[in-house]
Amino acid sequence: MSKVTTMDVEIRFGDCDPAGIVFFPRYHRWMDAASLHFFMECGIPPWHVLETTTGIIGTPLLEHHTRFVKSATYGERLTIATRIEQWSRKTFVQKHTVTRGEDLICESAETRIFCVRDAEDRRRIRAIPVPEDIRSKCE
Amino acid sequence: MSKVTTMDVEIRFGDCDPAGIVFFPRYHRWMDAASLHFFMECGIPPWHVLETTTGIIGTPLLEHHTRFVKSATYGERLTIATRIEQWSRKTFVQKHTVTRGEDLICESAETRIFCVRDAEDRRRIRAIPVPEDIRSKCE
Amino acid sequence: MSKVTTMDVEIRFGDCDPAGIVFFPRYHRWMDAASLHFFMECGIPPWHVLETTTGIIGTPLLEHHTRFVKSATYGERLTIATRIEQWSRKTFVQKHTVTRGEDLICESAETRIFCVRDAEDRRRIRAIPVPEDIRSKCE
Amino acid sequence: MSKVTTMDVEIRFGDCDPAGIVFFPRYHRWMDAASLHFFMECGIPPWHVLETTTGIIGTPLLEHHTRFVKSATYGERLTIATRIEQWSRKTFVQKHTVTRGEDLICESAETRIFCVRDAEDRRRIRAIPVPEDIRSKCE
Repeated sequence: MSKVTTMDVEIRFGDCDPAGIVFFPRYHRWMDAASLHFFMECGIPPWHVLETTTGIIGTPLLEHHTRFVKSATYGERLTIATRIEQWSRKTFVQKHTVTRGEDLICESAETRIFCVRDAEDRRRIRAIPVPEDIRSKCE
Repeated sequence: MSKVTTMDVEIRFGDCDPAGIVFFPRYHRWMDAASLHFFMECGIPPWHVLETTTGIIGTPLLEHHTRFVKSATYGERLTIATRIEQWSRKTFVQKHTVTRGEDLICESAETRIFCVRDAEDRRRIRAIPVPEDIRSKCE
Repeated sequence: MSKVTTMDVEIRFGDCDPAGIVFFPRYHRWMDAASLHFFMECGIPPWHVLETTTGIIGTPLLEHHTRFVKSATYGERLTIATRIEQWSRKTFVQKHTVTRGEDLICESAETRIFCVRDAEDRRRIRAIPVPEDIRSKCE
Repeated sequence: MSKVTTMDVEIRFGDCDPAGIVFFPRYHRWMDAASLHFFMECGIPPWHVLETTTGIIGTPLLEHHTRFVKSATYGERLTIATRIEQWSRKTFVQKHTVTRGEDLICESAETRIFCVRDAEDRRRIRAIPVPEDIRSKCE
């Protein structure tokens, strides 16, 4: 079983496009913030602290599948519920459900990895096995 | 058969995150631009012109599935190749392939709809059947 | 005298650039949100409501002058204090002060106008005199 | 005398706000890209290369003053002309002029510094004197 965390978002004028609705890449920004928020709520330090102790610089995406159900606009408030659906040796699937009151707005399943910088080319990054201590804090 | 269009993107410093790589929602911004670029290259006017003649305000996403293969960083140039893989009565699947030279960086399959404003609540939008004249210009 | 409102911002990973600090256009997004937040806290409806009653679509910027004093990074929390420093017939100056605890991070003076759509070309906008009822609610 | 470089920008749907015009923080993103573009056109390597040879991680802003003259919308093309107006020992003023054909859209004067990471706290940054070899390449 995964912990579930929630994060609230106020939709701003500048989050919306000329159709007057949230421009969809904004949802991905918010879900990325919700991903990190999940780990911090589980007691894991932010990446910049982790980097100094473990070399981990973040949890880049391998893939994601996102479904948009209703549109939303500024002046509205969203809640993002986040949990981890599945752990594998090197990957995990994190699920975000974005709601406005009772309405489902969108949901995404993100497959992510824990990464460190490549020792030979620090501009490149590489995956490491899921750290056991991090996993256990999220369950 | 679908036409295929390409759009080039220069990666900027501000497109990258503290890990030094492109922050993934940026790819979605670029692919959204590539989506509109595709239609304009096929001879369809931009949405703000279409809105005055047809009421169409854009092609919002119903869902998308995106795979990230390699990371990229600023100072690099990407090419986004875009085509339409499938047409249904009310939806279509648009495929974007993002490459850096020979390297596949990421790819996405977006399911989109053509939308007009709702007559009763202009802040809401609703789908219409795919316009035949638009479809024929894309093939 | 102007009312003063405050808005809190959590800095996210994706708000920061490869130097690890907030990419400065983000501050402008937040200050734009703080600008609208100010009006809403003063009892003025959001723009999409105002548009239907008054035609006002927002308060675009004529100019701004921004000073950056200290850098900030993700995991930190900022507070934006906003007030109106000066009213003229068609313009007003809105001042934002961004702090992290005791530290001044940046501050901006924005000169803005109230705008409606141009009747002849709805893609263009034009300024109107500052509405008296809005001004009085902000004082 | 400063060199002058130019950079073109295609305005995208997602660059615009619910009023249908470019959301102003986008101009700052583009001007930041134009700032780096200027240095690269003058023969200076991008920051990630400079960092390995000189420790320089970029040219953060100390302040800027921006004036918005006309609005612009998607489907339009902008040109950003960039030059350095003034050099001081630790700062320089970079000027961007954004035009659409003959029309002035906006212009900004940015005061920037060259920065390296702080040796004691690598999450903080500090200014260094303007490197002579960089300055001479820009004139």
